[in-house]
Amino acid sequence: MLMKGPTRSTLIALKCTRCGVTYPPDKAMNVCPRCGGVLYPVYDLEKARESFTRSELARRHWSLGIWRYEELLPVGDWSYVVFLGEGSTPLLHAARLGEKLGLRNLYIKDESLNPTGTFKARGMAVAVSRLWELGVRRLGLPSAGNAAAALAAYASRAGVEAHIFIPRSTPESMVAEVRGYGARLEVAGETIADAARRLDEVASERGLFVMTTMREPYRVEGKKTMGLEIVEQLGWRTPDVVVYPTGGGTGLLGIWKGLGELSAMGLIEGSMPRMVVVQSSGCAPVVEAYRRGSDHVEPWPSPHTIAAGLRVPKPYADYLILDVIRRSGGTAIAVDDSEIVAAAKEMARYVGLLPCPEGAATLAALKRLIDEGWVDRDETIVLLNTGTGLKYLDVLHL
Amino acid sequence: MLMKGPTRSTLIALKCTRCGVTYPPDKAMNVCPRCGGVLYPVYDLEKARESFTRSELARRHWSLGIWRYEELLPVGDWSYVVFLGEGSTPLLHAARLGEKLGLRNLYIKDESLNPTGTFKARGMAVAVSRLWELGVRRLGLPSAGNAAAALAAYASRAGVEAHIFIPRSTPESMVAEVRGYGARLEVAGETIADAARRLDEVASERGLFVMTTMREPYRVEGKKTMGLEIVEQLGWRTPDVVVYPTGGGTGLLGIWKGLGELSAMGLIEGSMPRMVVVQSSGCAPVVEAYRRGSDHVEPWPSPHTIAAGLRVPKPYADYLILDVIRRSGGTAIAVDDSEIVAAAKEMARYVGLLPCPEGAATLAALKRLIDEGWVDRDETIVLLNTGTGLKYLDVLHL
Repeated sequence: MLMKGPTRSTLIALKCTRCGVTYPPDKAMNVCPRCGGVLYPVYDLEKARESFTRSELARRHWSLGIWRYEELLPVGDWSYVVFLGEGSTPLLHAARLGEKLGLRNLYIKDESLNPTGTFKARGMAVAVSRLWELGVRRLGLPSAGNAAAALAAYASRAGVEAHIFIPRSTPESMVAEVRGYGARLEVAGETIADAARRLDEVASERGLFVMTTMREPYRVEGKKTMGLEIVEQLGWRTPDVVVYPTGGGTGLLGIWKGLGELSAMGLIEGSMPRMVVVQSSGCAPVVEAYRRGSDHVEPWPSPHTIAAGLRVPKPYADYLILDVIRRSGGTAIAVDDSEIVAAAKEMARYVGLLPCPEGAATLAALKRLIDEGWVDRDETIVLLNTGTGLKYLDVLHL
Repeated sequence: MLMKGPTRSTLIALKCTRCGVTYPPDKAMNVCPRCGGVLYPVYDLEKARESFTRSELARRHWSLGIWRYEELLPVGDWSYVVFLGEGSTPLLHAARLGEKLGLRNLYIKDESLNPTGTFKARGMAVAVSRLWELGVRRLGLPSAGNAAAALAAYASRAGVEAHIFIPRSTPESMVAEVRGYGARLEVAGETIADAARRLDEVASERGLFVMTTMREPYRVEGKKTMGLEIVEQLGWRTPDVVVYPTGGGTGLLGIWKGLGELSAMGLIEGSMPRMVVVQSSGCAPVVEAYRRGSDHVEPWPSPHTIAAGLRVPKPYADYLILDVIRRSGGTAIAVDDSEIVAAAKEMARYVGLLPCPEGAATLAALKRLIDEGWVDRDETIVLLNTGTGLKYLDVLHL
């Protein structure tokens, strides 16, 4: 179903989110060479606006997935678009669950309907496509989970090499999935931090491009399509509240960036949503920093939670995450594993959706927000279920 | 994203596929009361054609899933549409795999991107919606697998009761998934046939509507949307060959029925595809009957294969399946479990897609067809991957 020839991408630069320096976007880069800040792709929104209109988007083929948003994605030629069906996930009106909670407009964006079963597919689809276009052929990633599976799948589809560095504790089911896609696996140390260090050590010698979370600029572009879809699905209105499970933060930041671009293009009605960060009480560095009023995160000493995606002791983009919470009038909440397990059951039973622990955590957090009176019964609230619960039957005890 | 008020459904009758008698479609029915034949919904295609046009379909919202095809579905009012995001799955051009096999136009329809991870979602979405609309509140199903999960999820979403009868051998992971959605489970005997018998025994006393495969008329309508999507994704052309893993046969029959309706409406270019039935050499009753030239299936004595969906010793719709193979100029092929395992690896490695064993079986069958010269290198061939491999990591040995 994909098109041929040049896309309508309006990518014009990479810009450092810390020091503001801009770089031409035609070379594969990691972080800002000057200050180490996170690099964000920048688009010519004036130009994008010519074809990225509500009516034009309504005409684009349903089968294009996230690539319907070509103007705001970084890939320049369709021949490099590595497509597995990512995006176009449902935004479910959770009527029965909402009634139970006293909420009229509760929605769940179900990211389990993505290739490899999680939202990670969106980021990897865009990053692998763009890096392939820029001539990169060997990708390196430290991961113990879903990001590894997604990278391996997209690398397989493109025919480029994926080198995954996993901690010893990685579950065998995850290893099997990654190995199945033909990725090269190296067991490196006890934690994800060990694996990341190992990748950094060997990357240049092995010619690997490092894709560690928020240390390459394109994964966030894939994730932002969650925000674009939500707005389109709500009839070009923004929700009042977005509740997001936050480990490395790419999804939260992506949604915020996407909505910001739509807003700058005059395409949305309503103000920007309040962004709620959800973490686990066993690893809540962002929640802690938010409470402290700090603009950066102190590394969490020994992360433990069944929600593996939230076991991130210090997100690289901490300053961006904290900025989004504050600028949006949002908040940050930590929930216990027992609440996650209970919420997963409730979501399955009243929505018909088997969430991953991270997705269930958003429902647990929402209950706190209701108790605190932080949300209103008529507000439009979107919970993100970031992946399928099928990979977590052992911890969910359904 | 769903609409309000009446749909444009043009359902006018249920018609027996054996004796040809028609019935009004406004009562929940199982098989033909006169002859026990499979009942098929019939539509007013003249009326459907007024709004079901290529250009109109191109304008319908990407977020509607299978319900974009409302004219050809049996639900009369949107308020009964039970939606979890079913449909709109990708049709992947398998360029790397095709090259390896010497095929230029090899496609895989990836049904793993459905709610509950399999194509079963399409059928259950439509059946649960329609039965709910007809006033049915208690659904009964014998199943050891994915159909149970799909029914449980849709019943949960609608708020109706699902009673699942499972054989003792059902894997605990499958039981957990079904239980998670709040379905009532009863262990009944050693095989799926035992479970089906138990359901038949208690159905009337417990007020359960029996949803055994091909013994209720609406699941096939959901499955037919696979065919509608494939044609739309190929630009309103039909493929030359469709390769389908066939247990109960609902998917194969659904695709054929859908294409027949499109053809009758003058909407497709090209002739009808040759339909290839794939079974396991450990349970190949349809392949046997096809070779014998018979119009019905002899029950397979002791089915054994890792592809659980193919463990159907005697499909209820055997006469319809055999008719489709012959009328389409298709064929029927049995493959070994070892071929299935090898094909799953190959699909993961060269397409970036982790298939279920049944989906992998289609690739194993395709290789036979290539060896026999039954397919041409320029033909458009569509393999159906009916579900995610994540539920089968233990048997796929990746």
